[in-house]
Order: sequence, then C-alpha cells, then structure tokens
Amino acid sequence: MTKKLSILGSTGSIGKQTLEIIEEHPEKFKVVGLAVMQNIDELEMQIQKFQPKLVAVFDEEKAQILASRISANIKICSGIEGLIEVATHDKADLVLNAVVGSIGLLPTLEAIRSKKTVALANKETLVAAGELVMKECLKNNVKILPVDSEHSAIFQCLNGEKITDISKIILTASGGPFREWSYEEIQSATFKEALKHPNWDMGKKISIDSATLMNKGLEVIEAKWLFHVDVDKIEVTIHPQSIIHSMVELKDFSILAQLGIPDMKLPIQYALSYPERIKGEVRRLDFKKVNQLTFTEPDVKRFPCLALAYKAIEIGGTMPCVLNAANEILVDYYLKNRIGFYDIAEYITRIMEVHQSFPYSTTEELQMLEQWVRSWIVNELR
Amino acid sequence: MTKKLSILGSTGSIGKQTLEIIEEHPEKFKVVGLAVMQNIDELEMQIQKFQPKLVAVFDEEKAQILASRISANIKICSGIEGLIEVATHDKADLVLNAVVGSIGLLPTLEAIRSKKTVALANKETLVAAGELVMKECLKNNVKILPVDSEHSAIFQCLNGEKITDISKIILTASGGPFREWSYEEIQSATFKEALKHPNWDMGKKISIDSATLMNKGLEVIEAKWLFHVDVDKIEVTIHPQSIIHSMVELKDFSILAQLGIPDMKLPIQYALSYPERIKGEVRRLDFKKVNQLTFTEPDVKRFPCLALAYKAIEIGGTMPCVLNAANEILVDYYLKNRIGFYDIAEYITRIMEVHQSFPYSTTEELQMLEQWVRSWIVNELR
Repeated sequence: MTKKLSILGSTGSIGKQTLEIIEEHPEKFKVVGLAVMQNIDELEMQIQKFQPKLVAVFDEEKAQILASRISANIKICSGIEGLIEVATHDKADLVLNAVVGSIGLLPTLEAIRSKKTVALANKETLVAAGELVMKECLKNNVKILPVDSEHSAIFQCLNGEKITDISKIILTASGGPFREWSYEEIQSATFKEALKHPNWDMGKKISIDSATLMNKGLEVIEAKWLFHVDVDKIEVTIHPQSIIHSMVELKDFSILAQLGIPDMKLPIQYALSYPERIKGEVRRLDFKKVNQLTFTEPDVKRFPCLALAYKAIEIGGTMPCVLNAANEILVDYYLKNRIGFYDIAEYITRIMEVHQSFPYSTTEELQMLEQWVRSWIVNELR
Repeated sequence: MTKKLSILGSTGSIGKQTLEIIEEHPEKFKVVGLAVMQNIDELEMQIQKFQPKLVAVFDEEKAQILASRISANIKICSGIEGLIEVATHDKADLVLNAVVGSIGLLPTLEAIRSKKTVALANKETLVAAGELVMKECLKNNVKILPVDSEHSAIFQCLNGEKITDISKIILTASGGPFREWSYEEIQSATFKEALKHPNWDMGKKISIDSATLMNKGLEVIEAKWLFHVDVDKIEVTIHPQSIIHSMVELKDFSILAQLGIPDMKLPIQYALSYPERIKGEVRRLDFKKVNQLTFTEPDVKRFPCLALAYKAIEIGGTMPCVLNAANEILVDYYLKNRIGFYDIAEYITRIMEVHQSFPYSTTEELQMLEQWVRSWIVNELR
C-alpha cells in the first residue's frame, strides 16, 4: 500500500532528501501536502514533480505570488494555519515535520490530535514542549518516529526491546568543526568556519548548533521525552567518525548500537518505511575501511551549551523552552555576524538566570515566553 | 514463573557460569538435570547445591563411583543415553548444551525432538550437522538460543527485525593471543602460549580454536545455520578490544551491533532469561574508558583455519563435519604437545583434500565419518 505523506519544510535539507527518497520509491510513498517557510521557487518545482493536493507557504506575500503562478488544481494556504492544514490533511498517513525551530510545535500538536503518525525532524518541538507533546501522543495513541540520526539509532536499537528496560542512553556526537580547536580559537571563529561540519551535510541552524554542541544538548532533551528516560541516564560521548549513531544500554548491561555511514537519508527512510525496512540508495559502510572508532568525553568548558541544555532540562518546566528560544535567536544573530561564538552561551546563561521556570500547560504560555525571550535579547544586544 | 533447566556440561566454563547465574536468581530458574563428561567431584558439589532430579555422567565408571557416593533421591545415568535423558527430561523447559565437541549433537537433536528450547553453547553441533539440526527445529517448532557471545549479539540485534532483512553479518574476532605474532613466531608457539586468550576466559578447546581462528570459522558456519544466511554474506573483522560482540547489516544498510564488556555471563544470561532481560551481575561497560575500537581484516596466511572453515561450508555436505572432527582431534594432539601449531591447519587441509563430501541425512553417517577422520589422523601421525 502507498503511504501518503505531508511534508513540512519540504525545501530544507531534510525535506529535499525526503522527496528524493519518495522519488526512488513511487510505489511506496505519495506526497499529499507540502509546506515551506518562503522558498516558493523550489516549492513550485516540487509541486510540478510531486503533484500534492495542498501546499502551504508560511509567508503570506509569497503564498500569494505562488498562487498567481500556479494554475493547477492545488489549494494554497499560508501562515501557521496553512502549516497546520498541511499537517492535518485528511489523506495524510504520515506527517514529516522538518521545519526549523519552535514554529514546528503547533503543526506537530495538531497532527497528533488528528491521529497522524509524526516523523519528527524538528527537535525544537520536543525541546520546547516535550511534556505537552508526549501527553498528546499518549492521549491520541500516536507514535512519533524520530528522524534525527541519533534518535533514529536509539529507536532502531529499541526495536523488539522494552522501553522500560533502558538503563542508559549514549548519544554520540561528532564534536563538530571545533572539536580540536582551543577555547581562544573557537572564541574568534566566524560563522563560516562554524558551518563547516566534518561529517554531516545539514542546514545552517543545526550546523551552528553542532559547532556549539547545543545540538547535542537539544538531543539530550529530545531523547528524554521520546524514550521516557530521566536525563541522568543520558550520556554524551564524542565520537568524531560519526559511525556509531547512538547506543542504548539495557538493564542487563547489554548495549545495542546502530551504525552506518553518516547520511541523513538512512534515518529519514527508516521513519518513512517503518516498521518495514526498504533497500534505498544509502551507501554501505565498509568495515574493511573503518580502521578505528574513537570516543572521548565532551568538554563543557569549550562547549558550555551542552551543560546549559542539561541544566535547563534538570530545572524543567519552561526552562528548556527559554533555552531553545534564546538559542534560536542567538544563532540567527551569530549567522548575521552580530555576536561572537561564545556570546550564544553567554546570553543563554544570563537569560536562564533571569527566567523563573514554571509549569506550563498550553502552547500560548510558551509563545508568550518566546516573545519575552526575543525582547529580552533584543534589549540586551541593542 | 520459574524456568526449569537441564544443563549439559555443567562442570565446564559455560556450565559453571550458568549455575552462578541460576544461583543469583533462584526465583527465576531451577535446575532439573545436570550432565558432565567425567568431573564427578565438581558435579557432587553441584548436586548438593542445586538438587537436580537427574544427573548424567558420560563416563560409566565415574557414574558408578558417583552413585556409590550419593545417597539422595537422585537418578544417575551414564553414557550418551544419559546425556540424552538429561536433555529430554520432561520437566525441563530449557536445555543448555555446553558440552565440548560433536558429542553434543545427539542430545541437542533429542532435546529438539522433545520440543525443548535449546540454549546452544556447543557450536560443534551446528558445524557438524547444521542442516539436520535446523530441519528438526523447523519440524518441531523449536527455537535455538545462541550462547556464543557473537551469535547472541546477532540474535539480540535481530530482536524486532526480520531475518529475511539481513544483508550481511559481521562477526567480530579478538584475533586471539597470536594476533600480532609473525608466522614464524606462531609456528613455534606452545599450547600454553596459545591458551592465553587476551579478553575471554574460556575452556581449553575453544582457547586453542581462538588462537588458530578456527573458532571464528566455526562461528561463520554456526551463523549460517542459525540465521539462514549464505556464507558469502558473513564477514569476519578483527576487533581486538572485543567490545562490539558482532553486528548485523540490514537491507537498508543500517547496521545494528551489540556491545558490552567481554563476559560470557551476558550471553548466557540472555539465553536463560529470553525473551526478558534481567539485571545480573555483569559489569557495566564504561564508555568514558573506551578510548578506541579498532578493526582490521583477518590474515588468512597466518590463520589458515579461518579460510578452511569458509571452504568447508562452501563445499557443504559432510565437509564441515570432517573439518570439525579433524580439528577436535588435532587440537587435542596439540594440547598434548604431539603436533605443532600449524599442523592443525595442515592436517585439516589434507583430510579435506582426501574427503569427498556427500549429502548426509542421518547422525549415523556423521558418526561413521568422524570415526574415519580419527583413524585417518591416527594413521597419518603414527
């Protein structure tokens, strides 16, 4: 049977790779909805190729321009309502959410409430509102399939195992482009240097997050929610080769790991084909060429963002949301050359000191909080 | 519910560790039958501690001596019939077969015919008669649970996966005590040097097999039968740290691996507790202390036995049985200082040239063949 997909963020790195996989397997997958932030040129090409029933462009002006260009019988909507419409399209079996940042939260929640299986590449969703999202999953009996390479690895390892048997999760981290740089070298690193990830070909935001190790911190929080594991049972190890994508230790102290060449297509494809596996175009890892796999402890002095993420989730409540929102804004500032590398951690530290965490129950609370984070940062960096 | 066990080879290395696990979990496991080759002193202590209903001693004289010593209400039997009686005891839920060598074959087959789940540490059973054993499993709808560390690793990785999705099995090998020795150094190695395995604490036969890499060859054959995989899809990689216990590549080229400290208690316990996992006394692998994992290709010039095993299973029929029987006898000769290290491979090569493989269908054929192998070697080495 053909699986019908809605893809949020179809013109981003994950989105495009998802469409490549769908193209490889037209008998298995069909696109019903596509949503993007603003890249309507790329979207137009995707519409021609994949013929979705519905598309959404977050930017309203761009949505209108696209509408004037497209003559086919396709519904075009816009704004967050548009994203939600794509995420809840009645024909979609699976919603792949690959938008960047906390804007992915509402579409994820609404997809869950519409009983759609969600393939989640938008980790900020779980970082900002993991508790809320997981509650909705439970209530609606909906599965989240992780698309992050690390969480897909853990998910694959847990196949056939009981989630309650987990005694530890070991997230591997490449260490990013600055793994071997000194504090001083990192301090003056430009965003162009930060964007040069050694192993993975990814979008800008996640590439910077990999350079600060915030990405791993966000993944720790994501893992906590996805696998119902206390954060003190989640360990990070620096594994520069990115061959072992993560590991799970079970209660008998047997460790299961998932390995492969670093290629996002593998976890994306697994989320699409789950519970089946399909033969794709992912390259094969040749163990004859793997000489060694190394592991070291992360250095939180050079990479303070990792420790900040642990701290935020330990405090809980709204603190991870603040961490995530601040990080999003600060990474954007860094990419615009307005702040230095360590300013990201510096301002997150400060806003976490200012913010009094509280238990939240609605997305409105989180949205208001994000607005406060933004104005606080704008004010500080004025 | 308490699982009731019969243990064949209870005074060997695997047998003793099995009993230690049972002692740790008296609420989970109970011993109903014990069988040994001849070590009645150790067996007597085990009888006192575990109070089995039935014991067997292969050596008839020793069985009689034991009978004269034991006053309790325990049935004592002997010979291969005795081993089979323990293997088929009507109260046993699980038969752990940890005898050494092809003598384990008949008890394994009879256990399967009595619909017992078999935890198999006796790899020679599958090497000599894999086709026959697996046919019986299918016919009787019986599961074999591997106790070998490598096969347990693969079995664990395949939990929740389809066996038909396997695209490759990667067996890891420590490389044994002679991994870094030159051909000339190995040539004059004494059996005492060969017994010094770097990572695993094992019995004598398997320690020598590890030094020649025949152990890995036998495991290739074992894996072929256990996991229904063609031998050209089974790869061996030398991994001196013995942390990754083996791997499975699935059809999407995702690789799953099982890791842990090298301790036979983990795979034994898993076979006992399967499909559950239980918390045992196995030490935890600390990834903070794992600096690196290395991999190299096996050198079949220095370790010709590995290539011989591949050749035997590629020829098929009775050839693996001949390989295995010859190896058993030659290892014994080597342990008695009667032949040199490379004579093991040399005589196996020669007997494989002499033997015309044929399709077998009964254990009698294999037993006659083993007698021929023995007389051929005795004659050659006269």
